[in-house]
Amino acid sequence: VPAATSTAILLAHGPLRERVSAELTGSVYRNGGVIVAHDHYVDHERGHYFTRLEWRLDGSRTARTDLEGALAETLHPFGLSFALYFSDDVPKIALFVSNLSHCLYDILGRWRSREWRIDVPVIVSNKTALADVARQFDVEFRHFPITPESKIEQERKQIALLRERGVELIVLARYMQVLGPEIIAAFPNRIVNIHHAFLPAFPGAKPYHAAYRRGVKIIGATSHYVTEDLDAGPIIEQDVIRVGHATPVAEMIRVGRDLEKVVLARAIWAHLQRKVIVDEGRTVVFG
Amino acid sequence: VPAATSTAILLAHGPLRERVSAELTGSVYRNGGVIVAHDHYVDHERGHYFTRLEWRLDGSRTARTDLEGALAETLHPFGLSFALYFSDDVPKIALFVSNLSHCLYDILGRWRSREWRIDVPVIVSNKTALADVARQFDVEFRHFPITPESKIEQERKQIALLRERGVELIVLARYMQVLGPEIIAAFPNRIVNIHHAFLPAFPGAKPYHAAYRRGVKIIGATSHYVTEDLDAGPIIEQDVIRVGHATPVAEMIRVGRDLEKVVLARAIWAHLQRKVIVDEGRTVVFG
Amino acid sequence: VPAATSTAILLAHGPLRERVSAELTGSVYRNGGVIVAHDHYVDHERGHYFTRLEWRLDGSRTARTDLEGALAETLHPFGLSFALYFSDDVPKIALFVSNLSHCLYDILGRWRSREWRIDVPVIVSNKTALADVARQFDVEFRHFPITPESKIEQERKQIALLRERGVELIVLARYMQVLGPEIIAAFPNRIVNIHHAFLPAFPGAKPYHAAYRRGVKIIGATSHYVTEDLDAGPIIEQDVIRVGHATPVAEMIRVGRDLEKVVLARAIWAHLQRKVIVDEGRTVVFG
Amino acid sequence: VPAATSTAILLAHGPLRERVSAELTGSVYRNGGVIVAHDHYVDHERGHYFTRLEWRLDGSRTARTDLEGALAETLHPFGLSFALYFSDDVPKIALFVSNLSHCLYDILGRWRSREWRIDVPVIVSNKTALADVARQFDVEFRHFPITPESKIEQERKQIALLRERGVELIVLARYMQVLGPEIIAAFPNRIVNIHHAFLPAFPGAKPYHAAYRRGVKIIGATSHYVTEDLDAGPIIEQDVIRVGHATPVAEMIRVGRDLEKVVLARAIWAHLQRKVIVDEGRTVVFG
Repeated sequence: VPAATSTAILLAHGPLRERVSAELTGSVYRNGGVIVAHDHYVDHERGHYFTRLEWRLDGSRTARTDLEGALAETLHPFGLSFALYFSDDVPKIALFVSNLSHCLYDILGRWRSREWRIDVPVIVSNKTALADVARQFDVEFRHFPITPESKIEQERKQIALLRERGVELIVLARYMQVLGPEIIAAFPNRIVNIHHAFLPAFPGAKPYHAAYRRGVKIIGATSHYVTEDLDAGPIIEQDVIRVGHATPVAEMIRVGRDLEKVVLARAIWAHLQRKVIVDEGRTVVFG
Repeated sequence: VPAATSTAILLAHGPLRERVSAELTGSVYRNGGVIVAHDHYVDHERGHYFTRLEWRLDGSRTARTDLEGALAETLHPFGLSFALYFSDDVPKIALFVSNLSHCLYDILGRWRSREWRIDVPVIVSNKTALADVARQFDVEFRHFPITPESKIEQERKQIALLRERGVELIVLARYMQVLGPEIIAAFPNRIVNIHHAFLPAFPGAKPYHAAYRRGVKIIGATSHYVTEDLDAGPIIEQDVIRVGHATPVAEMIRVGRDLEKVVLARAIWAHLQRKVIVDEGRTVVFG
Repeated sequence: VPAATSTAILLAHGPLRERVSAELTGSVYRNGGVIVAHDHYVDHERGHYFTRLEWRLDGSRTARTDLEGALAETLHPFGLSFALYFSDDVPKIALFVSNLSHCLYDILGRWRSREWRIDVPVIVSNKTALADVARQFDVEFRHFPITPESKIEQERKQIALLRERGVELIVLARYMQVLGPEIIAAFPNRIVNIHHAFLPAFPGAKPYHAAYRRGVKIIGATSHYVTEDLDAGPIIEQDVIRVGHATPVAEMIRVGRDLEKVVLARAIWAHLQRKVIVDEGRTVVFG
Repeated sequence: VPAATSTAILLAHGPLRERVSAELTGSVYRNGGVIVAHDHYVDHERGHYFTRLEWRLDGSRTARTDLEGALAETLHPFGLSFALYFSDDVPKIALFVSNLSHCLYDILGRWRSREWRIDVPVIVSNKTALADVARQFDVEFRHFPITPESKIEQERKQIALLRERGVELIVLARYMQVLGPEIIAAFPNRIVNIHHAFLPAFPGAKPYHAAYRRGVKIIGATSHYVTEDLDAGPIIEQDVIRVGHATPVAEMIRVGRDLEKVVLARAIWAHLQRKVIVDEGRTVVFG
């Protein structure tokens, strides 16, 4: 298991070539890296290769700042695109919320109990209802009321704030507001949403009401990256729970909350562990 | 548990009235019936009452043929509609199939192993591929090739055949053919279909392909009564199984088969146990 | 759905008699109560009847303080034992913790977000690690260090404290200390524990390690009432999650946490909704 | 996806060495093999490496009969033990049954519908109850009545029969008879059993009765390789289903059947796909 020692994590994908895997691991070995995890997935239909490689930095003969360049030399001849991460970086996450606190409490609890090594520099909201929770956890709370007229302007201010705070990931923790194209473009594949339905069933508003009307026997929650198509971004994680004819909408909403917070947490965790690659509207999520 | 002794089973529903439950059980007691199961569900929003009552016939002071009339006297003043069944009746089921045999084998196995007390007088198909399976289990196999031109005529012949054979329930065991309005009208809430997706997601053809393209992390199967709206009838049972980015369509189809046959079997069983009431496009399925 | 209006909730069980259900609902009706929920379960093998009845108090012609006596008159001739609750009572819960905070954060979040209408007057611990969490949520934190020598004495002090604070329910939120017989006897069927395994598999210490060694493909969590037999009390709720050969113990511990907090929360919720009856070492948990 | 073309499948494991993976894939490439699947798992704690490699035979420059020798040359220097299989071999499976037919029907249906490419040369039973099913599927049925006195002798006859028929895998499809040490030793990691409980909970006889008495909320089924320790062999697959207080033993037995047949089928499938490696009493099951 990746222990206290720092690791480098590489996510790469591109056309499948015969020796790409051997070349990649060989280059890590030659640099003195000890591999602690190596996952790959091949989409044989498309001839596309995806990999996640994690190795210890302590024996590495390449300086941390030179690693990216060294990897580029190895990988670009194969036509692979890649991203490099370090396990000792502490990712900065902004939480976007409205009136519902269950996902917010859950994430803040994971942070403060050190289950997750993250930083939450700011909570952003279009409402003021959860300012108290921010105060309780001693986090800056920023209120951006949004009207159709003010939306573009307000989201530009949000982008500026997030950049200033060094935010890497935005989590929409039951944020009841559709994001505009500018903020989505500013954080590509770095905005994680939780939708309270088993997508693609019941996108949009009031999915539990729709599920009740349709009489489904199972309800779900879906966490996905946000794209401009509402509730249609690449799915990271889903889970479901059984309901029945005797489950009224209010009870679906209640039991759904536990599903939402757990599914959202799993998606964030996968992202933070650098286990997710997005390609052609789908995710590869390494186990 | 309802043992060897025969029982009567009542399914009833209608407007909620104060004393309907007490009146109903009282009338059974007064007739010497021993209640072995009594379920009810109240939709408080609509003020609607649903019940399933099962009692032993051996002590009954009302002749079996008079029971329906006696119940009508008790229930009609309350505005309840009802249906009466006897546990020792052996329901006749027609199986509709095309080329895929997994559901067919599953149902025939349950029948022949006496897991289910049913009769399967006939297997109906628009193809000939599964005639051998019918022969193996010694069941009549009837081939009705269907073209757009012949469809109405062929389905009329099917209806005539099913009536002649005394068929109570039609099971579409991966029958690859949309039913026309006449046969649907002839067997209201008595045609059970299995759709290989988690409805309302992915209705229609090739749902596993659609699920793969959308990148869902869970796939499902749905058993429902057939109505004129394709894949939109009242859902009886659903279940799901986890997949991942590395699950190709062919593998979804493979693991989906087990889901399909189990979900379909549970729906048929619920129907045969007289545990399903359909109302306003949704089912009440007693536990 | 039981709305803002206050309700009375009756839990009763005893030998099955013919007219007990009709008598019970009749007596509520005669008193002007409007029934909003009525569940029952009959163990036909033992001839034992269990029921949960909930009715609105607003039309009741019996004073709240006289209800218990009135019910006793109705139920005792049938040999039923019962308990009566009111939905507007706010149950006082004591949380027992050690070093792990995930269940603690989860429960406190549900309380403060008003998902649960409870009061948490005190957090009890054999360690000091979680004093900060108590402070963050503004709850009294009481440290009772326990040694084999001090255990009896310390638990007597705990009992005194809990009684003084009017505590109805004790929740062992990953409390790493076996309770002694006195405190168990003082709170019969009112101490809820979460065990991090799928009982009866892997009772006792380090269940995830044992699960790894055995090579199980699914791990679980179990919430149960505490009895003198370690991890053998009546089970209220269980759930499971899939693992594999590649899931090391550390990862089981991590994913297990989410299971533990959700299973514990469901058990507490069922208890608080007055949906649990304990009989002969098993629970009846109404849906 | 492994298509119509034949493949070789290598299962190997042993001490983790730096270049073992690159060496292995390199040797396949040099021989003209096109890799269609490559899975590995590293137990970092023990420093143990497990791999499954599958490649197309059509371009191979090594004759099929020489492959084993060539692989030995590559792998033995690394201290890996391995087994080699060919996808176009049709494994011969013996089914052991007693009185219950649900697993038997399920397996025979998968065979005859060509879901599985296997051969079932013989059904072995200690009872005669299922001779008719064998006849229906046109399979030889061999009755070996077993008493404490005859057991050793009868099992020797079974071993002789299985060897004569070229049986590779024995499936205990709810065979109600503990196997003796000789037959277990004759088929190491090649006897698959289905136990109708979530092991290690409820080993031995009548697990559903034990589960009911304990009041568990979830029941399960476990498929494992048979070893001399009863129900303690390496687990291949498990699954569970929710039950409740109102689920009597008879109903557990009924719903358990579907679990048993699906879990057993998944285990057999994993074995047949050459996806299972047994090491130190646990399985590695590649996805």
